[in-house]
Amino acid sequence: MPKGNTPEQVTGMKFPSFFEEDRQEVEAALEPLLPREDTPPASIHRAIRYSVFAGGKRIRPILCLEAARIFDPKSQAALRAGCALEFIHTYSLIHDDLPALDNDDLRRGKPTCHKKFGEATAILAGDALLTLAFATLAEAQVEPARRVAVIREVAAAAGTVDGMVGGQVADLEAQGKDIAPEMLEYIHRSKTAALIRASVVAGALCGGAAEADVAQLGRFGGNIGWAFQVVDDILDVEESSAALGKTAGKDQAQRKATYPALYGLEKSHQMATELATRAIKELEPYGERAQRLRELAEFLVLRRA
Amino acid sequence: MPKGNTPEQVTGMKFPSFFEEDRQEVEAALEPLLPREDTPPASIHRAIRYSVFAGGKRIRPILCLEAARIFDPKSQAALRAGCALEFIHTYSLIHDDLPALDNDDLRRGKPTCHKKFGEATAILAGDALLTLAFATLAEAQVEPARRVAVIREVAAAAGTVDGMVGGQVADLEAQGKDIAPEMLEYIHRSKTAALIRASVVAGALCGGAAEADVAQLGRFGGNIGWAFQVVDDILDVEESSAALGKTAGKDQAQRKATYPALYGLEKSHQMATELATRAIKELEPYGERAQRLRELAEFLVLRRA
Repeated sequence: MPKGNTPEQVTGMKFPSFFEEDRQEVEAALEPLLPREDTPPASIHRAIRYSVFAGGKRIRPILCLEAARIFDPKSQAALRAGCALEFIHTYSLIHDDLPALDNDDLRRGKPTCHKKFGEATAILAGDALLTLAFATLAEAQVEPARRVAVIREVAAAAGTVDGMVGGQVADLEAQGKDIAPEMLEYIHRSKTAALIRASVVAGALCGGAAEADVAQLGRFGGNIGWAFQVVDDILDVEESSAALGKTAGKDQAQRKATYPALYGLEKSHQMATELATRAIKELEPYGERAQRLRELAEFLVLRRA
Repeated sequence: MPKGNTPEQVTGMKFPSFFEEDRQEVEAALEPLLPREDTPPASIHRAIRYSVFAGGKRIRPILCLEAARIFDPKSQAALRAGCALEFIHTYSLIHDDLPALDNDDLRRGKPTCHKKFGEATAILAGDALLTLAFATLAEAQVEPARRVAVIREVAAAAGTVDGMVGGQVADLEAQGKDIAPEMLEYIHRSKTAALIRASVVAGALCGGAAEADVAQLGRFGGNIGWAFQVVDDILDVEESSAALGKTAGKDQAQRKATYPALYGLEKSHQMATELATRAIKELEPYGERAQRLRELAEFLVLRRA
């Protein structure tokens, strides 16, 4: 594959038509939320900006934004909440890459934060981004009761009980072991799906959705997030490092608990498709208004050409 | 000094009369906020509980509680907010002790979190406690607008711009260098005073204080927090490791930026006393109602016999 291509060209992913516009909106919103590079102490702000602007696809903010638009096409609060979710996602990548955890040198085709800035700065940059996420949510332009609900959802999704950190711990503990299907499900739902679910829920809350709609979109988000991690497992086996922008085949080398390892590739593809179908079914009541979320779901799970 | 004494006996600290009662109230409130040890994944919850219940004095929660009581003697929200502040304090200790940062083996007389549970678990336990802090604040029993204000204050105090992580970065960068008095002030105010100030401010907010009172108590908290760190510097020089429960003389060994290093011990004592006096002056309008905060201030700064 030729060098210098965009991720889209390299992996042959079909981005939804509105994706680039949303992504640019997110980039523009992220910028003023981060301290400038020369704000003292400058080293931490350089590291934070390096990691946040390392070329993420902004899937979580875009899901947040589009979930809100079902209920309020002009929600500004969702854009801000989406940025907070991107900060949490970025912090989790920085810490996961550390030598004591996954020990990765490469992320999105660039040196990982600790490789570039040292371990101390990387630990603190992750801490700072997690903190900044909640500072950002506290300023979302939506009534305080909804703001608090968003904070509650996001904090739970990032936490240890069925949340991201819990999933990461279980993932580390499962390395090199034969694990049961239930544990694999727990890991994927906690490690990845919880925060994606929270992105959709935060969007719905910011858009003013009623309680039942928030719950319904939560089910969409949970299933699409789960499917997303199954696809991630599959891509780690099927794609080259160049296409992924990170070391491919690492799951197998580290004997990680993955869907392909437990079920094989074909069955994994099938499971991801089933989860995505189940997710998309949750969007039925919203008809045309949910068309973008539908396209996002298809992109996230059926994203290979 | 005989072994097996309580910290109070060893260091000769004079705790205020109400301190033990408050401390027990905080311990009882912390307990149900933390997942049980057997909640999966158990390893992270064991590490979290180990660090939270390692014998901290609960200074931040007690300051929070007593600040609230000036305005509402029965504030339950302040107790909860205080626990969240203790979680943030504990997370900062776990991460500061890591090999890549201060590389400490001993904390409060016990092995540090990474020594006991390994580095990966310690990093994730810190992340989890920071997350749990905001989950806890989101449930404080006070109207949503005040809850959001507390979250904003705490997130800012824990952040990189004049906050705890910023102070920690500056502290690491200053090691082994000759630094200006302004930088030393920045480090101490950010690294330590910001979170102590936030504890007092969170208490005032939870207690229902008016805006001007919140600001006034914020000045008390900022100055007492600053003085507190100056005293910490002094103790690191004057006390033995046994009395401190951590390695003494480490500041000097690491060539840390401290008040004794820059001004000498006598002048440092004098500066701490001046800061405490300035802090206590802010409490004048509250008369008898602020007596406990006054005693806490005296204890925190003039705490040696």
